[in-house]
Amino acid sequence: MSHEKFLSKAARHFEESAIRRTGALAGRIPDLVSFAPGYPAAEMFPWGELTAIATELLNKRNGNVLQYGATRGYRPLIECLLPLLGDRTIQAAADEIIITTGSQQGLDLIGRVLLDPSDVVLVELPTYSGAIAAFRNLQATLVGIEQDGEGLSIDALDEAVMRLRNQGRVVRVVYVTPNFQNPTGLLMSAARRRALLDAAERHDLLIVEDDPYGTLYFEDTTHVDETRPIKADDTTDRVVYLGSFSKILAPGFRVAWLVAPRPIAEGVELAKQAADLCSGVFDQRIVHAALEQGVIEALAPRLRRHYQEKRSVMEEALIASFGGRARWVKPRGGFFLWVKFEDHVDDRDLFERAIEQHVSFVVGSAFFVNGEGHQYVRLAFSAATPDRIREGIRRLASAVELMTSAASRS
Amino acid sequence: MSHEKFLSKAARHFEESAIRRTGALAGRIPDLVSFAPGYPAAEMFPWGELTAIATELLNKRNGNVLQYGATRGYRPLIECLLPLLGDRTIQAAADEIIITTGSQQGLDLIGRVLLDPSDVVLVELPTYSGAIAAFRNLQATLVGIEQDGEGLSIDALDEAVMRLRNQGRVVRVVYVTPNFQNPTGLLMSAARRRALLDAAERHDLLIVEDDPYGTLYFEDTTHVDETRPIKADDTTDRVVYLGSFSKILAPGFRVAWLVAPRPIAEGVELAKQAADLCSGVFDQRIVHAALEQGVIEALAPRLRRHYQEKRSVMEEALIASFGGRARWVKPRGGFFLWVKFEDHVDDRDLFERAIEQHVSFVVGSAFFVNGEGHQYVRLAFSAATPDRIREGIRRLASAVELMTSAASRS
Repeated sequence: MSHEKFLSKAARHFEESAIRRTGALAGRIPDLVSFAPGYPAAEMFPWGELTAIATELLNKRNGNVLQYGATRGYRPLIECLLPLLGDRTIQAAADEIIITTGSQQGLDLIGRVLLDPSDVVLVELPTYSGAIAAFRNLQATLVGIEQDGEGLSIDALDEAVMRLRNQGRVVRVVYVTPNFQNPTGLLMSAARRRALLDAAERHDLLIVEDDPYGTLYFEDTTHVDETRPIKADDTTDRVVYLGSFSKILAPGFRVAWLVAPRPIAEGVELAKQAADLCSGVFDQRIVHAALEQGVIEALAPRLRRHYQEKRSVMEEALIASFGGRARWVKPRGGFFLWVKFEDHVDDRDLFERAIEQHVSFVVGSAFFVNGEGHQYVRLAFSAATPDRIREGIRRLASAVELMTSAASRS
Repeated sequence: MSHEKFLSKAARHFEESAIRRTGALAGRIPDLVSFAPGYPAAEMFPWGELTAIATELLNKRNGNVLQYGATRGYRPLIECLLPLLGDRTIQAAADEIIITTGSQQGLDLIGRVLLDPSDVVLVELPTYSGAIAAFRNLQATLVGIEQDGEGLSIDALDEAVMRLRNQGRVVRVVYVTPNFQNPTGLLMSAARRRALLDAAERHDLLIVEDDPYGTLYFEDTTHVDETRPIKADDTTDRVVYLGSFSKILAPGFRVAWLVAPRPIAEGVELAKQAADLCSGVFDQRIVHAALEQGVIEALAPRLRRHYQEKRSVMEEALIASFGGRARWVKPRGGFFLWVKFEDHVDDRDLFERAIEQHVSFVVGSAFFVNGEGHQYVRLAFSAATPDRIREGIRRLASAVELMTSAASRS
């Protein structure tokens, strides 16, 4: 029997995430150096503290720890988020917060609350591929806005909103990752953040601000004030803010959160009731204890140093292997180097060569909603050890060399 | 600023789950006896085993335990599900299985893969309220099919399919809970299961079979063979089967699964990638270890006895308090007593009186897609202790008495 006829219109257009696809490949290649997924460094998980917390939670035999929980999330965790948000200069109320099963769920739920099929979402060009998948699965149309060194171009945003609305399109949402964007690593400037808020007010848009990496700024170049979220200055309730414990504690717990204006938070709660009832209860308890006991706060400066060091290792390896033939904007935080090769390398061809050399990355085009980006690759420096980073970049250089020499022969 | 204009068409019609709403109420009433949510008995969670498993998993400091995981789920867990499914007489392949964040996510994902807005889902009358919410949030139309003592009526199903298709409606999916249905506790007969499969073939329908309670049959009245899933006889690949660890281990882990024909499983995987990337990885590891070490298998007969005993306690208490003025079909498994009062009691009015008496339940109408069911209440006997069950039924009797005496005065 063919099942094709049973699939919904949306399902016929579901796209596989390039990151997940390359992740699946990784399992099959022996000794692969993977720069593909944005995995945090497992050696930095606070194993001792987490073991003590989990054991203590279970030893108490409090039924609520393993029972169904509230859809909005474990209340003490939500309350512990208020000072954490305060540290990020965001004043939020508990009833504006929903705990989500990772920020990916936050993106999906907010999309379901805000988007009808064929509605437009304005996104940075390039943007996070998981957001592309979430919004496209809802049959939204994604329109990319060019970025310069300070972030997305407000002129391009203005032009897009007017053009699309003149075409009769519904344009209500702009999605951005101002802090150490995935994939580019860019930090949006303070002036651009203000200009984006002004533009949202001018065009009556909501801003969805995704901030998984904000805490992971690199102290050699960046001050915490430069990571101030747009949400901190959201005096007119136009910003939905997404945060996560995946990069600052561990992703396996699938605990993240969003802060939204109350009517939107209520919509998200109803969407979540039907989507998974509640996020993992034991997981939320563990994260709560880690937050309450200061584990996450103590870890943050260590993570900043750790990823800064790996960033530097990868940059040095790239310079050693490529000299001037590879270019990137130096990341001031986060997990990613966004690399452009001089030699007009196509990302898909390079990916095939790279896999032959037992190194992987994510193709740049996976992050572009307009079919472009083939001259870029995204390299995650977060998970591999320094030695493996160096080895992986050597392999990548071999892949580029084999490709360009094959091209010059043909 | 009003945010109403930003909400999607779907979000404007999101409905709050009655179970969740009454659950929220429960927190505010002191000394409440709650028969509302279908919570498993926390005293039956295998605390010792789970503590040992969690501690051992974390002590090994294997990064994969807290890292992102595969969207389809932790592969060894999927492989351990094959013999469990075999015990339920279901022959499945690993690539037909997706681990979900609770079965609620399974319902949502399968809905997203199969349903377009305004498509019809045929459901039992009454049916599980969480399925109603999941399918309605996708803007599907739910049409109820009458049940008799053997399950949903095939004549009514035939009539509905033909009538709806004559009206030009798309009817591709029927959703059922054959084992100890939520809310009625009904066990669908073997003959009816076969007839439903035949009807699915005749009308070219897919069956979504939800089976959270199948293992929890009561041995005083029911043989395991009577719980044989429809999926076991699915020779034409028409059944999507949903199972869960929430009732047979603990719901706080949010680990469940679905078995679907490959093309549908692939759609579910893509939907899940964008919905939450993966289910809790630590949770899946814990469940895997519990399965592999035989914890879940050893627990099952104890759970059957436990819930059978509570079922009997509640029945005896109902008889003591109501005599013949309350009626129900004796549950042969599961968590619920589905009670109809002789005195033409309205479920919503009774709920208000019951809350005043510090006892709660779920109104029957929450499970009906056609606005009916106001003469029923759903009482979960699963979570309360025997003494509390007796106390709660006494309070419920007071509530009914106060209501009917008030009615006779007016």
